[in-house]
Amino acid sequence: MNQKGDEVLETALRRGFIWPSFEIYGGAAGFYDYGPLGSALKNNIIAEWRRVFVVEEGCLEIDTPTVVPFEVLKASGHVDHFLDAMVECTRCKGAFKAVDLLKEQAGVDMEGKSVKEMSKAIRERGVRCPDCGGELGEVFEFNAMFKTAVGPGSKRQAFLRPETAQGIFVDFRRLYRHGRGKLPLGVVQIGRGYRNEISPRQGMIRLREFTMAEAEVFFDPKNPVHPGFERVASERLRLWLAKDQSAGSEQITEVTAADAVRQKLVCNQLMAYYLALTVQLLRRLGIPESAVRFREQLPGQRAHYSVETWDAEVHTQRYGWIEIAGFAYRTDYDLSRHMQHSGEDLTAFIEERKEKVVCHVVEPSFGIDRIFYCVLEHSLATEGKRKILKLKPYIAPIQAGVFPLVTKDGLPERARQIERELRTAGLRVEYDESGSIGRRYARADEVGVPFCVTVDHQTLEDNTVTIRDRDTAKQVRVSIENLAEVLKRLIEGTLSIESLGGQES
Amino acid sequence: MNQKGDEVLETALRRGFIWPSFEIYGGAAGFYDYGPLGSALKNNIIAEWRRVFVVEEGCLEIDTPTVVPFEVLKASGHVDHFLDAMVECTRCKGAFKAVDLLKEQAGVDMEGKSVKEMSKAIRERGVRCPDCGGELGEVFEFNAMFKTAVGPGSKRQAFLRPETAQGIFVDFRRLYRHGRGKLPLGVVQIGRGYRNEISPRQGMIRLREFTMAEAEVFFDPKNPVHPGFERVASERLRLWLAKDQSAGSEQITEVTAADAVRQKLVCNQLMAYYLALTVQLLRRLGIPESAVRFREQLPGQRAHYSVETWDAEVHTQRYGWIEIAGFAYRTDYDLSRHMQHSGEDLTAFIEERKEKVVCHVVEPSFGIDRIFYCVLEHSLATEGKRKILKLKPYIAPIQAGVFPLVTKDGLPERARQIERELRTAGLRVEYDESGSIGRRYARADEVGVPFCVTVDHQTLEDNTVTIRDRDTAKQVRVSIENLAEVLKRLIEGTLSIESLGGQES
Repeated sequence: MNQKGDEVLETALRRGFIWPSFEIYGGAAGFYDYGPLGSALKNNIIAEWRRVFVVEEGCLEIDTPTVVPFEVLKASGHVDHFLDAMVECTRCKGAFKAVDLLKEQAGVDMEGKSVKEMSKAIRERGVRCPDCGGELGEVFEFNAMFKTAVGPGSKRQAFLRPETAQGIFVDFRRLYRHGRGKLPLGVVQIGRGYRNEISPRQGMIRLREFTMAEAEVFFDPKNPVHPGFERVASERLRLWLAKDQSAGSEQITEVTAADAVRQKLVCNQLMAYYLALTVQLLRRLGIPESAVRFREQLPGQRAHYSVETWDAEVHTQRYGWIEIAGFAYRTDYDLSRHMQHSGEDLTAFIEERKEKVVCHVVEPSFGIDRIFYCVLEHSLATEGKRKILKLKPYIAPIQAGVFPLVTKDGLPERARQIERELRTAGLRVEYDESGSIGRRYARADEVGVPFCVTVDHQTLEDNTVTIRDRDTAKQVRVSIENLAEVLKRLIEGTLSIESLGGQES
Repeated sequence: MNQKGDEVLETALRRGFIWPSFEIYGGAAGFYDYGPLGSALKNNIIAEWRRVFVVEEGCLEIDTPTVVPFEVLKASGHVDHFLDAMVECTRCKGAFKAVDLLKEQAGVDMEGKSVKEMSKAIRERGVRCPDCGGELGEVFEFNAMFKTAVGPGSKRQAFLRPETAQGIFVDFRRLYRHGRGKLPLGVVQIGRGYRNEISPRQGMIRLREFTMAEAEVFFDPKNPVHPGFERVASERLRLWLAKDQSAGSEQITEVTAADAVRQKLVCNQLMAYYLALTVQLLRRLGIPESAVRFREQLPGQRAHYSVETWDAEVHTQRYGWIEIAGFAYRTDYDLSRHMQHSGEDLTAFIEERKEKVVCHVVEPSFGIDRIFYCVLEHSLATEGKRKILKLKPYIAPIQAGVFPLVTKDGLPERARQIERELRTAGLRVEYDESGSIGRRYARADEVGVPFCVTVDHQTLEDNTVTIRDRDTAKQVRVSIENLAEVLKRLIEGTLSIESLGGQES
């Protein structure tokens, strides 16, 4: 915790980005509501992700249920392996994540260790119940999926999906046919994921219900290449290698995507491709590459399905480095398991070699809520007393403010007309007439409105308005006739206030 | 069932609009996957809804959890009233919805009747188990919410939300403040809703997990007006009044929105406003007003929170008239209940009267999956042997096809370049080189691709391509330099092939 992080959360709460869920009933840990501005920002972040992965990359997007039958998650290994090591207080019966207590009270990182080792460490290091100080019991495994049942009674056991990925794997045959057998085949899904955390205590960073954007990239294991690799080959990756972590070093290895493949620092070209794409995506969202690193997971830390995993981490002032995406090399694990359990053929046919193969998979998986937090923190700037949320205009929740200079002489009516025209043109705008124009600009700056349109007396004479740029405070006068078009181009970045002749006011 | 309906589903399955969920494990009734084309179409329908309700109307959009604690749904009445009348076979233990069996086997509509009346009707009319012919037991009530628990054990009972609305109601105080006390205050939410149907058997029409788009419009009960009513006042509404239904008449009363209010056919102006807006929205989605009617629910049919409900129904060949949206006048039911149960003050302050009031609510609630089906059915046209999915270009999953005329002379490479440029410009395009150009056009027509770009030998000489219009098959030659811009304007409808001088090829 620190000043910047507190400022971000305070602004986010007060201005309607995020709110604690079910607040009037005392709240529920691990759940957050996106308020009006947060919901728009989140949607815009998703739109950018979709633009990169679906529109530009051409991945197929599908949308499958969040309620998933037992058989599917038995096959995927989640019934047996999606576990959290839990410990209960023998006195107050409070439940805790063993790893968290060990970290907090003993300063040791036991992620990936066995329950026996954790029980032993708890005893030896005198870790106690954080609520009542009571003695803790033995550490045991708790399946972190939310349970439910489909139909009356408990006839058919089901879970809320822990990842969107399984909805893709079970559809592989149809997807492969839809893509006419072409490999690599990228398939994505964006939607809710669930993890029934034992006792989440990290706000937006550890949620029980979250939004994921995942890609499963199926490929011929003998040919793990991306046809567009050249486009990202020179993108620089900041890698925190496993060997350096094991040696206790914070050393970052900075290489181009091409060199990461050449030097075998990553498992294959596809992996390098998606790491590079992530740097580009985060940059588009306003997170500079200097605040991004890729951490190679150590063997004990990887999920049950992965043989190599990279975490994309973003540096924040509030939480330090946080994982915002994971890149797992899932091999043929999932498809093979589903073949075994369903008895169906999920192979691909490699024409050149006349060979049936089970595709391997590289999975870039993004946590949208965490990216949302990072975008907010990296955008909030303080200039003197002025707070400015310097969101990229194309992800700003409100694209333009419309203000009458004063609330008389017919200016509000004219401004309302303009507001209506801009809304009809598809722009997300907000009308504001309350308080001085300076105060309205300040209010708009704080929530990241990139452009403010002011209607003044000259407007009534010559049908022009001023547009003010959030980041430079420069203004330019434009004709109402072109207003929607000019704003759209300013927002997408193909036009700037300066190029229109904007000046300090 | 009938030919048109079968054609729609056959095309939808074969071409990747919808797939049965968890198919390789034998499927799960009441769940559907959206394939690559379906997911895009659904997203585009949601985008149009959002454009109307959020961008144009200025409603606040929020995004709250799908997992909802017991207390919230106890307060909302769902724990006690979200019930389905169920009956089990005494022999095979099969579970059925009593209303369905009574309709299917005895031809009576007992929606809204008591379990006693239904039990009696089952006995008297000799309704039997549809699976094994066995005798049925007594009808009883089954709560149709999916149950789960938050945290380890069953510590905190929770449900998957039956509607998105409650997430809005519990946030009322924050929303009211965010909207600076202005009424009416429209708040929307788009997301998953769940209903644990007993045994769903109607494909996409009766889902256990579905996507809803709901608006809760809070207003001063003494002033149920919409400031923009004039914009829709002359929109014509086709109403099927309760009195005509009770009299066994199919008579439709067609009135303008203004007259519906004046003649007191609907409860207030806000209700009429949203009915009219719905006609406009459906028209934008390609569903003509002649296929839309508003059915006034009979007293026994209404949900526990509503005193007047209208269903928007769309006529389909497959299922007859189906409900795609409900408009409930929820009065102050929800806010009052949450005030009682939480002890919090959720009133609004009416400045003019210096009076605290509990807002009333009109709720337009849309079922996106059903609208999706209606859009597909209303768009599928057959012209001779040619099938054309005449989707409005702005909701088409693929906005343009890019085809090399032949697969030699460098045409594929040039077409690939153009594909890449269009993707970078944000257009959803697809490259296709397989089969004759006529076959590729036909394939594109069937999935509703509105424009196809063909790269031919002339392209290599003068950097022009042809654009072919799906609905008229007219073609026009344009410069590659302007291609993205021209396509964008064709898609949004501000330009037509004819205005560009397009001709029959």
